[in-house]
Amino acid sequence: MTLTGKHLIGNRESAGSADSFSPANPSLGTALEPLYFEATEAEIDDAVSLATAAFDPFRRRLAEARADFLDAIANEVLALGDELLERASAETGHPLPRCASERDRAVLHTRQFAELVREGSWVDARIDLPDPTRQPLPKPDVRSLMQPVGPVAIFGASNFPIAISVLGADTMSAFAAGCPVVIKAHPGHPGTCELAARAILRAAEATRMPEGVFSLLHGKSNAVGAALVSHPGIVAAAFTGSLGGGRALFNVASARPVPIPFYAEMGSVNPVFMLPGALKARSARIAEGFVAALTAGVGQFCTNPGLVLGLESDEWADFSETAREKVAAWAPATMLHAGIHSAYESGIADLLERESVELLGRSSAAADPAKSEAAAYLFRTTQQVLLDDPTLFNELFGPVSTLVSCGSPEDMVAIAEKLEGSLSATIHGTETDLADYRELVTVLQRKAGRLIFNGYPVGIEVCHSMHHGGPYPATTHSHFTSIGTRAISRFIRPVCYQDWPDTMLPMELQNANPRGVWRMLNGQRTRDGVVG
Amino acid sequence: MTLTGKHLIGNRESAGSADSFSPANPSLGTALEPLYFEATEAEIDDAVSLATAAFDPFRRRLAEARADFLDAIANEVLALGDELLERASAETGHPLPRCASERDRAVLHTRQFAELVREGSWVDARIDLPDPTRQPLPKPDVRSLMQPVGPVAIFGASNFPIAISVLGADTMSAFAAGCPVVIKAHPGHPGTCELAARAILRAAEATRMPEGVFSLLHGKSNAVGAALVSHPGIVAAAFTGSLGGGRALFNVASARPVPIPFYAEMGSVNPVFMLPGALKARSARIAEGFVAALTAGVGQFCTNPGLVLGLESDEWADFSETAREKVAAWAPATMLHAGIHSAYESGIADLLERESVELLGRSSAAADPAKSEAAAYLFRTTQQVLLDDPTLFNELFGPVSTLVSCGSPEDMVAIAEKLEGSLSATIHGTETDLADYRELVTVLQRKAGRLIFNGYPVGIEVCHSMHHGGPYPATTHSHFTSIGTRAISRFIRPVCYQDWPDTMLPMELQNANPRGVWRMLNGQRTRDGVVG
Repeated sequence: MTLTGKHLIGNRESAGSADSFSPANPSLGTALEPLYFEATEAEIDDAVSLATAAFDPFRRRLAEARADFLDAIANEVLALGDELLERASAETGHPLPRCASERDRAVLHTRQFAELVREGSWVDARIDLPDPTRQPLPKPDVRSLMQPVGPVAIFGASNFPIAISVLGADTMSAFAAGCPVVIKAHPGHPGTCELAARAILRAAEATRMPEGVFSLLHGKSNAVGAALVSHPGIVAAAFTGSLGGGRALFNVASARPVPIPFYAEMGSVNPVFMLPGALKARSARIAEGFVAALTAGVGQFCTNPGLVLGLESDEWADFSETAREKVAAWAPATMLHAGIHSAYESGIADLLERESVELLGRSSAAADPAKSEAAAYLFRTTQQVLLDDPTLFNELFGPVSTLVSCGSPEDMVAIAEKLEGSLSATIHGTETDLADYRELVTVLQRKAGRLIFNGYPVGIEVCHSMHHGGPYPATTHSHFTSIGTRAISRFIRPVCYQDWPDTMLPMELQNANPRGVWRMLNGQRTRDGVVG
Repeated sequence: MTLTGKHLIGNRESAGSADSFSPANPSLGTALEPLYFEATEAEIDDAVSLATAAFDPFRRRLAEARADFLDAIANEVLALGDELLERASAETGHPLPRCASERDRAVLHTRQFAELVREGSWVDARIDLPDPTRQPLPKPDVRSLMQPVGPVAIFGASNFPIAISVLGADTMSAFAAGCPVVIKAHPGHPGTCELAARAILRAAEATRMPEGVFSLLHGKSNAVGAALVSHPGIVAAAFTGSLGGGRALFNVASARPVPIPFYAEMGSVNPVFMLPGALKARSARIAEGFVAALTAGVGQFCTNPGLVLGLESDEWADFSETAREKVAAWAPATMLHAGIHSAYESGIADLLERESVELLGRSSAAADPAKSEAAAYLFRTTQQVLLDDPTLFNELFGPVSTLVSCGSPEDMVAIAEKLEGSLSATIHGTETDLADYRELVTVLQRKAGRLIFNGYPVGIEVCHSMHHGGPYPATTHSHFTSIGTRAISRFIRPVCYQDWPDTMLPMELQNANPRGVWRMLNGQRTRDGVVG
């Protein structure tokens, strides 16, 4: 497929600006074709206006039709074949197998949302039957269900060019809800975005979705994103990226005359607690697993384990030594782009300068800066240093972690209490450890969105129970997740129907329950119909 | 019971400031005893610190214990007897029967949240079972459920001193979730707040809840509310009141270093559409019902019908004439306080000055300004005036409404499209009307949180399916409601447990399902246990 570099505004291609930019191949340090253009205010307005016009026809399609649209997207993505993987690899430095696994993941969550829509109970239909004889006032017939909010803006992540970008769960959950989507393509992988967007547009056409249900805009400047979030037609936005970028757009969204929710997932430090029983039983195996998790994706996961805590002991020393060896053996690899690479290098330089932090180990092979390669680093410090200098809690994006030696279980709890919100917190331990460290668990329940036992935070299962969220700064709103089927909650709101005629109700609220969904009827869950 | 005017900070009484204020009896224009004090920064900090310390012990209590706490609150409120009703009446001008119905409503929703907690399925427990043999990676055991977010700040409404204030669904849903509450008492009815707060504290003591689970702070200045919302220990806030006040505090909450959700319910214009079939069949009866709704609570409901639309016709003229007569017959009554009364009077004066708006009728009896009495007003205009001057859409708090004559069904749709977000939208019609005006319904589904057929928006049923919310400016976040059991959603977030040992999981996630809650197991709803 020939890439054009143009915005895809519904079925129209557009490139109205003279400002353009080239994506780069970070492994080679060379520019990639074609040029991509900055979206103009007019183009942003066109995309949002089309999305606004598409909202009513899109949400009124039967659930089955929306599910077919999602399945068609999955098929079109598979039909892109190696071209998608190769472009993603060229734009991000990810090896091809990684790109393939991202593609499979995107197909999986797209089909999962199709299934969710087909099954239908996600609308949380509730019915409270009337009682005309109630005193002092008759009780009305009250029913409610979730409906889509309207056109949403989506900003994909740099680190998952396929699975958390145009084809991410943000897009698919918005479509599942019935919301048109305007995507701001990530400037690090605009070609991957264009391929993915064309797949979505083909699926939309094949399943006869209204024009404007999807548009793709390009832009490297912050102005494009801010203008999109500011547009009065956009009613919600989702974002995956840095704390700086996410907070800036959150501020724009909150300051609008009509403020809108801005759901940002901004990464976190993802602490790992190594409890004594686990280290005693298998410190070497845990260290291997830890370094594998630390270096996965060149450390560019939002759930990268940035802080590891253990009690001073021989086993902790053994763990540290094995981790050091594994880090030394890890071959430097290309980061996503030169900007991320240079932020990583300066973060490492800053840590190396600190007297309070000791360099424990690093990749023994040299990293090639021309290829934006990162070496892995392991630092070591004590709990007191961490308590005195909270900046050590800050996430440094890349394959680096700090081991923190604690004097007592209480120290661990004290550090946990100081942590900011995190996407995940991990404990390695025996079941006895877990019972002994109940206080630590209690604190972590307040700090993190996901608690992992004897595993690693990277690799997020795509399922109904997954929660990829957490207290700020992990996200801007801890009630919501960006992965798993609960992600649909961001794009829906309840609408209540009082004394509404049965035939005019949304199907999920009609007496006969023609879609057979689970409902709450006078407080009881049931799939039964109601005798009208 | 002797009122003290002091803050109730956990079990301690405090009045550290020299600044004080007196509540007033709006019917008499006189001050009420005792003096109430402005909360100081230190007192705010004390209350939030206690709440923070109470969070873990409170949320770890068994669900049954939290339900008992809620039931005990309901009993203590009933035990306050007439004293609560008399104080509320003195502070707000509400007649005693109205105060009694508010009290009954507060008891009802408090017991409803107790029942919700006892039943337990609100935690939305989800389990996806593991598959160690899956390729290329084993599938972990992933489970999640809703947990409380932490200490919340609550701001009650002026217009419901019992049902939407200290004893409101905000407080009860936060307790149900497991969140400690710090309330900023409404300065219009601080004595009612003090009585209610003492009832809650007695219930907390009787059911051995941790100190700090509830505190009450007073203050008339905006600074107290802003300081409370700014406190780092507060993780969410709920508010019912004016657009100006709600937006100001929303801005504070959003600008914090760690932003928090600020759930404000700020009222709305609540349009009513009178369709031809209904007017033909029963225009007089609809007009009577409309004026009863318009003047209920002296028009001081957030769901007060501020705009009524009909097609120019003889029936619409009949409706208008009956409404005029009913408004003329309505006796002026005391508003909540002098400030609201004077805002109403100046809003009316502004409408009377406009050439584009015609005075159709008003209460024939004179209103006594010394008693803060409001007359009811009915204005009339055309759809073109409304389209040209959107300020007519603004809510004027009190017993006033504007009838808008439309030339065609398309005009009605055009006006609906111009509406801002609203808590409710009402249609009077036959079922044939509803089918004929499908486009109008489609627009209203985007604009309102609740759609009412052949009824009136005032009088909100307390039930599982109720939604009292809507797009901005009705609320700051359309996903959430402040009335009905869904209100608990504001104070909870998912927490996910990966490969966690069964015995250490929250009860609702354990294999055996000891609480017998509804769960989503591998995507299927069931109350069955899991074979571990």
